[in-house]
Amino acid sequence: MPSLRLSEVAALVGGELVDDRDPLINGVSGIDEAGHGDLTFVTSRKFIAKLEKCEASGVIIGTEDEVDLPAVRVAEPYRAFAAVLVRFQAEDDRVFPRGIHSSAVVDEKAQVADDVALGPFCFVGSGAKIGSGTRLGPHVVVGPDVELGRDCRLYAHVGLREGCRVGDRVVLHLGASIGTDGFGYLPSEQGLLKIPQVGIVVLEDDVEIGAGVCIDRATTGQTRIGSGTKIDNLVQVGHNVHLGRNCALSAQCGLSGSVVVGDRVTMGGQVGISHQVEIGSDAKLGGKTGATRSLIGGKEYFGVPALEAKESFRILSALRKLPALLRRVALLESRLPDQGRKKEQE
Amino acid sequence: MPSLRLSEVAALVGGELVDDRDPLINGVSGIDEAGHGDLTFVTSRKFIAKLEKCEASGVIIGTEDEVDLPAVRVAEPYRAFAAVLVRFQAEDDRVFPRGIHSSAVVDEKAQVADDVALGPFCFVGSGAKIGSGTRLGPHVVVGPDVELGRDCRLYAHVGLREGCRVGDRVVLHLGASIGTDGFGYLPSEQGLLKIPQVGIVVLEDDVEIGAGVCIDRATTGQTRIGSGTKIDNLVQVGHNVHLGRNCALSAQCGLSGSVVVGDRVTMGGQVGISHQVEIGSDAKLGGKTGATRSLIGGKEYFGVPALEAKESFRILSALRKLPALLRRVALLESRLPDQGRKKEQE
Amino acid sequence: MPSLRLSEVAALVGGELVDDRDPLINGVSGIDEAGHGDLTFVTSRKFIAKLEKCEASGVIIGTEDEVDLPAVRVAEPYRAFAAVLVRFQAEDDRVFPRGIHSSAVVDEKAQVADDVALGPFCFVGSGAKIGSGTRLGPHVVVGPDVELGRDCRLYAHVGLREGCRVGDRVVLHLGASIGTDGFGYLPSEQGLLKIPQVGIVVLEDDVEIGAGVCIDRATTGQTRIGSGTKIDNLVQVGHNVHLGRNCALSAQCGLSGSVVVGDRVTMGGQVGISHQVEIGSDAKLGGKTGATRSLIGGKEYFGVPALEAKESFRILSALRKLPALLRRVALLESRLPDQGRKKEQE
Repeated sequence: MPSLRLSEVAALVGGELVDDRDPLINGVSGIDEAGHGDLTFVTSRKFIAKLEKCEASGVIIGTEDEVDLPAVRVAEPYRAFAAVLVRFQAEDDRVFPRGIHSSAVVDEKAQVADDVALGPFCFVGSGAKIGSGTRLGPHVVVGPDVELGRDCRLYAHVGLREGCRVGDRVVLHLGASIGTDGFGYLPSEQGLLKIPQVGIVVLEDDVEIGAGVCIDRATTGQTRIGSGTKIDNLVQVGHNVHLGRNCALSAQCGLSGSVVVGDRVTMGGQVGISHQVEIGSDAKLGGKTGATRSLIGGKEYFGVPALEAKESFRILSALRKLPALLRRVALLESRLPDQGRKKEQE
Repeated sequence: MPSLRLSEVAALVGGELVDDRDPLINGVSGIDEAGHGDLTFVTSRKFIAKLEKCEASGVIIGTEDEVDLPAVRVAEPYRAFAAVLVRFQAEDDRVFPRGIHSSAVVDEKAQVADDVALGPFCFVGSGAKIGSGTRLGPHVVVGPDVELGRDCRLYAHVGLREGCRVGDRVVLHLGASIGTDGFGYLPSEQGLLKIPQVGIVVLEDDVEIGAGVCIDRATTGQTRIGSGTKIDNLVQVGHNVHLGRNCALSAQCGLSGSVVVGDRVTMGGQVGISHQVEIGSDAKLGGKTGATRSLIGGKEYFGVPALEAKESFRILSALRKLPALLRRVALLESRLPDQGRKKEQE
Repeated sequence: MPSLRLSEVAALVGGELVDDRDPLINGVSGIDEAGHGDLTFVTSRKFIAKLEKCEASGVIIGTEDEVDLPAVRVAEPYRAFAAVLVRFQAEDDRVFPRGIHSSAVVDEKAQVADDVALGPFCFVGSGAKIGSGTRLGPHVVVGPDVELGRDCRLYAHVGLREGCRVGDRVVLHLGASIGTDGFGYLPSEQGLLKIPQVGIVVLEDDVEIGAGVCIDRATTGQTRIGSGTKIDNLVQVGHNVHLGRNCALSAQCGLSGSVVVGDRVTMGGQVGISHQVEIGSDAKLGGKTGATRSLIGGKEYFGVPALEAKESFRILSALRKLPALLRRVALLESRLPDQGRKKEQE
């Protein structure tokens, strides 16, 4: 495990060491679990009280915070803490040991850069290319004619089907499935006739794809994930979807075929988007939202079907008054002549 | 890559070549991305305008369409296009190379037809049988006593647990999990007591199962997927579910234990069906619907809990008027004597 | 296949053999599918009628039931039936053959108990420890420094990332992903900046994790699943979640980061829980519920956002009357002077 002095933390994050003490930091931890030797952080004054019973050896605080513990003062404590985390993550060489494991199978017609790491039981198919610095964990399958860029990280059990293209610095987590067939059939008298899926998936640079995610290849052309977009676990991306840049999709979202999403769109968990719907840039979709029609960018949405969040919350608040409202209307009706109610019942 | 003349396309789909030009077709593409050498298609007049700036070399059109591009005229352009796609899909021999890869492990008590293809690191357990023409990609696990029919295609990382049975021409996509334990426990003083799951999964002929799908084995007897049924990615099928023939389930649907579904049922994405619910043949469930009670066949449903779509849409439309309705009722009440409101508040 | 006399069944479950007949039992089955040689069960009087056309050779019945078939009488028929199922499940030695398969790769710095079973193509990384009696199916990946307790069962394609800790008697089903990165990013001018995820996942004793489940490692510290908790297929558990003991989460639930769940909580399918929400012990969340705020324990909840189930059902019932209510209010308004409506429209 790494360790560093709190003064080194200050230097690393460009912060100010608050007092004389310069303890040794052996770990990193949230404020509730931090123990001796740990560095922690506070992002707002309300958490400072928690520090009193916290045994951390050091803490990153905001520019106007005062604490008793040895501290580093910075403008953005969480951002600084995240920078320190980099020093405590598992070493690349431990998670993805260098070199090509003796059990890996690389087709003789594949082109693999000299410094690529391939874990046990990896398979790289004919015509595939893997760029410099890319590392694959155990059991990764790179199909024929797949192109993988530089400095990617593919965790165990990732599967990439034929012809898909992956940019640089892309991360694919455990068991992600890239390039599987789109879900397209034609009804016929013989049942559902499969529409061949002859397109590919393109993942641009700096994309990160969660564990268990499925991204379908295009029927023709490309399913495309824009650079810098991050997708959480168990998300489904249908055929011919075009996702913009720097989007963040939470776990278990589902994007139907031919959905088009702009840049910097965020989605909470379990969002669903219908076939061919377009979502404008900078839209924010709350968890479990179902977008059945296209949505203008720059706004917040919630509900099934999706409404602007403000309207949706107004309706949800009104809903709790609905059972009473029914009684209130019945009461109003009871105080007026019968004629009206009869008319309604006709 | 394959290439063919537009006249060959016409012959292939039983259509009529519209003019003298007979360009070479090297690819297939949607109208928005089609370039030189591509074949595209139009399914309705409103898309014909798009052809003006389309660089496709040929187009499949409807029987009454007129276009400037070299064209093939047919009754159903998309169906014809789908038929052409078959010619452009990756060759079977490239995706599933012939023969048994030297790294594959086949138990000596397994029975594997002579012409089966097994990719790198496949494992076939004791007592398993694999029929003629079936091909497995890399890293497929066929558990003991599994029976796989003829001409199936199993993509990388598929897992089939002990004793399950698969018909002919079945397709299992990346990482599908077949025959995992049903979720059954008995509460007891020692906690949740596992109910052994001793049944199997049966996939009938021509079934297609998406990437990441999980199908639980039956507690006793069979979990059964009827012939011709297609299941999209990341769907959960519980123990003892019986799915009929030629159903189509979109991504991320979840069917609880002992659900019974008729024939030709379609479900949008993220549908959920409660324990033991029955869904009649030809029912259509919209995306995100939650069926907590059995549903009669032949109708459309939407919402949580599921209502007939017409009623559900009526309610959703009315909902947007609810906040104003609350104000309207308050106004009505304000114009009547106090007596009524008091009564309500009691 | 095992077989036993009905009298042996009676002894096994501590029940009473009802009559002289002591048939041979070769299988177990639900009442609708049971055939000659099968044992079945009835849990309530309404199912006894079904026994008339049932060809089972024996049946487990309640203490006050009377039937024509050879029967064993017990206080809790389903519990007794479950006990018999244990005798009919596939033998451990068939599903997880003893010994270390010759194709498995175990790092020389891993510590593996003598009696561990490792299937074909398993990989055990440096520093990993596997306890006595634990069995791994084919293609399981145990990352560096992972600790696996005693008597665990890991099915094919399970992936466990570096440093995670698993207790005793834990079951991990097909393709489960344990210890994948939490979904944490900081917005910056260069796009989304990854927050390193340096924590681990801890699965306590007797935990069972379904196929395709993803459990994220903590940002710092632990994502923790309490002892005896059972998680169904395709569930997502975010970073730093703490799940209590003896919970049961149905398929496709999603728990966002830092969610805290008490003991004995049950969730239906497709439930979603927002970031940092706390769910009290003994809470029951109905299928598709979305908990956006913390929920007190011991109650039932339903809906998006989650309300107490009683209130939620009242609202849902009222909703069906909403379209008519709109008409009723319009009628009331039409019978009062215009002044009021004008006021509303201002």
